[in-house]
Amino acid sequence: LKIALLPGDGIGPEVMDQAVKVVNAVAERFGHKITYQEAKVGAAAIDATGLPYPDETHQVCLDADAILFGAIGDPKYDNDPKAKVRPEQGLLLMRKKLGLFSNVRPTFTFPSLLHKSPLKQERIEGTDLVFLRELTGGIYFGEPRGRNEQGTVAFDSCVYSVEEIERLARMGFEFSQKRRKLLTCVDKANVLATSRLWRETVQRLAPEYPDVKVEYEFVDAVAMRLVQWPKAYDVLITENLFGDILTDEASVISGSMGLMPSASLGTENKLFEPIHGSYPQAAGKNIANPLAMVLSAAMMFEYAFGLKEEAQVVSDAVNASLEEGVATEDIAEEGRSYSTSAVGDWLA
Amino acid sequence: LKIALLPGDGIGPEVMDQAVKVVNAVAERFGHKITYQEAKVGAAAIDATGLPYPDETHQVCLDADAILFGAIGDPKYDNDPKAKVRPEQGLLLMRKKLGLFSNVRPTFTFPSLLHKSPLKQERIEGTDLVFLRELTGGIYFGEPRGRNEQGTVAFDSCVYSVEEIERLARMGFEFSQKRRKLLTCVDKANVLATSRLWRETVQRLAPEYPDVKVEYEFVDAVAMRLVQWPKAYDVLITENLFGDILTDEASVISGSMGLMPSASLGTENKLFEPIHGSYPQAAGKNIANPLAMVLSAAMMFEYAFGLKEEAQVVSDAVNASLEEGVATEDIAEEGRSYSTSAVGDWLA
Ligand SMILES: CC(C)[C@H](C(=O)O)[C@@H](O)C(=O)O
Ligand SMILES: CC(C)[C@H](C(=O)O)[C@@H](O)C(=O)O
Repeated sequence: LKIALLPGDGIGPEVMDQAVKVVNAVAERFGHKITYQEAKVGAAAIDATGLPYPDETHQVCLDADAILFGAIGDPKYDNDPKAKVRPEQGLLLMRKKLGLFSNVRPTFTFPSLLHKSPLKQERIEGTDLVFLRELTGGIYFGEPRGRNEQGTVAFDSCVYSVEEIERLARMGFEFSQKRRKLLTCVDKANVLATSRLWRETVQRLAPEYPDVKVEYEFVDAVAMRLVQWPKAYDVLITENLFGDILTDEASVISGSMGLMPSASLGTENKLFEPIHGSYPQAAGKNIANPLAMVLSAAMMFEYAFGLKEEAQVVSDAVNASLEEGVATEDIAEEGRSYSTSAVGDWLA
Repeated sequence: LKIALLPGDGIGPEVMDQAVKVVNAVAERFGHKITYQEAKVGAAAIDATGLPYPDETHQVCLDADAILFGAIGDPKYDNDPKAKVRPEQGLLLMRKKLGLFSNVRPTFTFPSLLHKSPLKQERIEGTDLVFLRELTGGIYFGEPRGRNEQGTVAFDSCVYSVEEIERLARMGFEFSQKRRKLLTCVDKANVLATSRLWRETVQRLAPEYPDVKVEYEFVDAVAMRLVQWPKAYDVLITENLFGDILTDEASVISGSMGLMPSASLGTENKLFEPIHGSYPQAAGKNIANPLAMVLSAAMMFEYAFGLKEEAQVVSDAVNASLEEGVATEDIAEEGRSYSTSAVGDWLA
């Protein structure tokens, strides 16, 4: 099994190290042979090569059976709206060039961490939902985008084709069939032409999946209900920008951003990444929570290699660490926190 | 004082009746002469005239000193993506033709309702933030929008000019100066060209308001922090679609959608509306919560007429009703709920 390692920026490298320890431990136990190739992306790549997603990195990704990715972003680029090259472009290029059209973001709770959530326990206990966020279309990539000549007007374009919507929607129906058989299509069909095409396409496909109940909800309503009663949802499908906002909102349910993994799936390539960002304030301090990255590796075993048992032992280890209180400061009990690498060692 | 009444659809008419009772009571106590003119908008207008925002209605709005608006929307239009005329178009036309470029949406908590919030009390107690959502630009109105000839590709355009951003941003700075002097500019400048123009424009204006601290945050981060720690915010400015999503999300903090008012302000015209929708399941049942509509009337006294004391007595009455438990079923204690009209009578 060939894994590409793209640690990226900020805390990316530190949390990646822990994922690698865990993957190695699993490989040893189950007798898999794993080889790694590391490559740069984001600010790390800009600093080294001038480009946020260099060709060498792309080649490493193409050659791999799965890609583990850490995080991207550096504050020195954020408040400079005129910066020509930005780390995030690396992430967007990577998604686009690897055809990673579906970002799978589960949200669930850990019994031992329910009290950490800003939401009341009875509202979130048992939450088990998964977003499928379209990842290579919409306003993230639509043309034209830019400014008029005088620089006084800016514009972006949101564009979706039926094919783009259909492949994501079909994945949503299939996920639902393996779960609680409820699919929620999240859009803004009362305002946007693209949303109406989403809704129409999902309506057209629905009869092919008669066992799945389909609901249509506006994005603003979902932004509310997600906090009010997240248990109402099973599988949610949505376009790129709505998915960006709602999945980050949903991550709060579990009590910490540092916990939620994700998979970005394409026809050929599969990438796994924590949903948290590069958290630059914590970089190099050995305090960042590695669990989202480790759980992303668990998703890799399942979604890229079809190795469910391997995925399960990783999740079990994470649960055990939480129950034992082997946790970084963001989720540890007062005065009992472990370092990033100590958590990684324990899990491995 | 001439007030245009646009009850709209669903529970709109019922909650509007309560606001009128309260406005009349205030007028009597303070010796104001108020005249009303009623007009149709939304599904109600389509049913009567075929148009969601007829010219007569527009004229009534232009003639008034302030507009009270209920709600818009009817489920019979929602799941028909091909419907030619939709109630929501009435709302969008109204905003555009009246130049209501800034939607002011406060979020605060009521001490007696803290326990109703899905969020833990210590997280929300004392929350006092206000969103200024740009309301007449962005992807809601940008051209081109529609489909290609074959109908296989749909597109929307997000467009912003410096002038549109600047007038909203200046209002944000001015609000901040009268409050806690913290302004948060919410955008997605790491992806969108329009967001970069927003950020640039706000950065250019900031030196004119040296007493205001300005922060820049990505929309996905705000979607999280709003639930994690809403007290961190004072005034937030954002574009139309982000504002739609985030203000609805924020409304959950107070424990009920039925509580939050809003003002839509333009240079010439001023409209006041609850942020909740038409809630068709409750229409005609005399159970809908009228408080958001009544508090919108309070905002009208302050923002349209400059009558702060009048606004205050309305807010005081609402607080008193909550403390006395005179409340509709959505927020009442078990087995002690009042009807919509009973709450209106009590307040008046
Ligand atoms: C960094 C940014 C471009 C990215 C996005 O908006 O997709 C991030 O927020 C994410 O969700 O992975
Ligand atoms: C009904 C809809 C068009 C509207 C909007 O998206 O602006 C509503 O959600 C609102 O926030 O007032």
